[in-house]
Amino acid sequence: MAEVFRQLTVLAPGLLGSSLAIAMRERGLADRVHVWARREEVRLQCDAQPWCDAVYAAPEEAVRESDLVVLCTPVETIHRLARRIAGSLAEGAIVTDVGSTKSLVCRFCDAFMPEHAFFVGSHPMAGSEKSGMEHARSDLFQGRACFVTPLLETDEGALSQVVRLWKSLEMEVTTLSPEAHDEIVANISHLPHFLATLLCSYLRSKNPTWRNHAGNGLLDTTRIASGNPQIWRAIAEQNREELLRALEGFEQELRVLQSALANEKYFEVLNILERGKDFRDSMRPPKA
Amino acid sequence: MAEVFRQLTVLAPGLLGSSLAIAMRERGLADRVHVWARREEVRLQCDAQPWCDAVYAAPEEAVRESDLVVLCTPVETIHRLARRIAGSLAEGAIVTDVGSTKSLVCRFCDAFMPEHAFFVGSHPMAGSEKSGMEHARSDLFQGRACFVTPLLETDEGALSQVVRLWKSLEMEVTTLSPEAHDEIVANISHLPHFLATLLCSYLRSKNPTWRNHAGNGLLDTTRIASGNPQIWRAIAEQNREELLRALEGFEQELRVLQSALANEKYFEVLNILERGKDFRDSMRPPKA
Repeated sequence: MAEVFRQLTVLAPGLLGSSLAIAMRERGLADRVHVWARREEVRLQCDAQPWCDAVYAAPEEAVRESDLVVLCTPVETIHRLARRIAGSLAEGAIVTDVGSTKSLVCRFCDAFMPEHAFFVGSHPMAGSEKSGMEHARSDLFQGRACFVTPLLETDEGALSQVVRLWKSLEMEVTTLSPEAHDEIVANISHLPHFLATLLCSYLRSKNPTWRNHAGNGLLDTTRIASGNPQIWRAIAEQNREELLRALEGFEQELRVLQSALANEKYFEVLNILERGKDFRDSMRPPKA
Repeated sequence: MAEVFRQLTVLAPGLLGSSLAIAMRERGLADRVHVWARREEVRLQCDAQPWCDAVYAAPEEAVRESDLVVLCTPVETIHRLARRIAGSLAEGAIVTDVGSTKSLVCRFCDAFMPEHAFFVGSHPMAGSEKSGMEHARSDLFQGRACFVTPLLETDEGALSQVVRLWKSLEMEVTTLSPEAHDEIVANISHLPHFLATLLCSYLRSKNPTWRNHAGNGLLDTTRIASGNPQIWRAIAEQNREELLRALEGFEQELRVLQSALANEKYFEVLNILERGKDFRDSMRPPKA
């Protein structure tokens, strides 16, 4: 059964935070929504939203009396925000986040929590190259993958509440350690992002006018390279070691292809193509 | 003004060939459509199509009296088909193709043409990971890029007819040499394809179950890896040297990122992300 929260606080309502507030309100999972945004223009924008009950200029104020607090800032600032709100959290408050890396975030946030509040890390994989409240959608999470990343010491009750939260938004929830999470996303999310980026930066250095000839293949393959560079720099920094390992693994695969082509071993080229197709064809279908 | 052909022959009506026939019939650009398909089941399928006037079991029969012949087989067999039909081509017949590589195709096909017929290479970039007549659409070519690749000795009149043909289907036509074409597509089409393939084959070797956690980023980035392995093996073979150069250029860019990350030079990481975003943001928007 879905858990209903009395008061949800979204700290930094971008694409994910706003979509979460809208989705929870629509499904009756949150009675009230409080919001904090760093920039005044975003606060004014929030004020005009039907899903938003109160807007604050200080995160400490925004979290008071909330039973659910969701940290939606870029990964490198999540732990600072957790420290800042720690003293204002209500008794029994559950705090989670939506950050793309988890090891550092979970260690720090957990350490900053007061005795009477609980941090459980989350990573709903529902972002896109778009950002900001204007792209928010109540069905953003539906059918998508979500990781919940408890530490060994994480409170069982808080963990199951956070898992139920994402499940009630129809996400496919996987629970695993922050370290296991960071290895997986380095490979299935950060590596693809940087490959798309590298392909674009390489093509730009070769001949910028080639963009005019882009077919749908290139457009799809590189769509995520439009993402916010600062956000991705921070992700790379937070998940540096796993990302380096993933890049190294990819490079080895690249060398196998290069060697097959250089030596005209087309059976090996075919082999790589068939293995790639096999993996791709067996993925979950894309959601709109 | 659009040129109207009396009789179009499509040799091997897959996704591109069938879509071309449908599009030309809809726009009144071809009075009759003749078809050859190697497999009997495809010939039966063609027989049932409203856009198809006659189906042949021999390509030599299918091209008789046609003023436009389009070769739509995989790249490695285009020249063999050109040789086979050469003796049956009508006076003034124009022969083109839809192959993804052009240097070898154009040299061979041109050499096989009789005095009274003209070969002009084409590469409409309208394919996808889908193939076969069942996915054919009359608007497949609309708004997409198309290369037309004359040799120095190509007949001017035939060249301009082929350019007009693709333009009348609302394609963005670029005319250039087969060699210049092969360099560009090695970078903007074959490289992205093999990166998507390598990403999938790498992930499969690391942990096949990770496909269950794929977000939309990974799905988009790897969509083209579902393409037909045999077709892409042949493309790699035909465009081997340019593809090797593109892979090498990409690998250098990869090394820049690896070194920046290894040395914690996040400003350089940001730089790569910004250059990638700049290139991606300035691409033509995707077509549905």
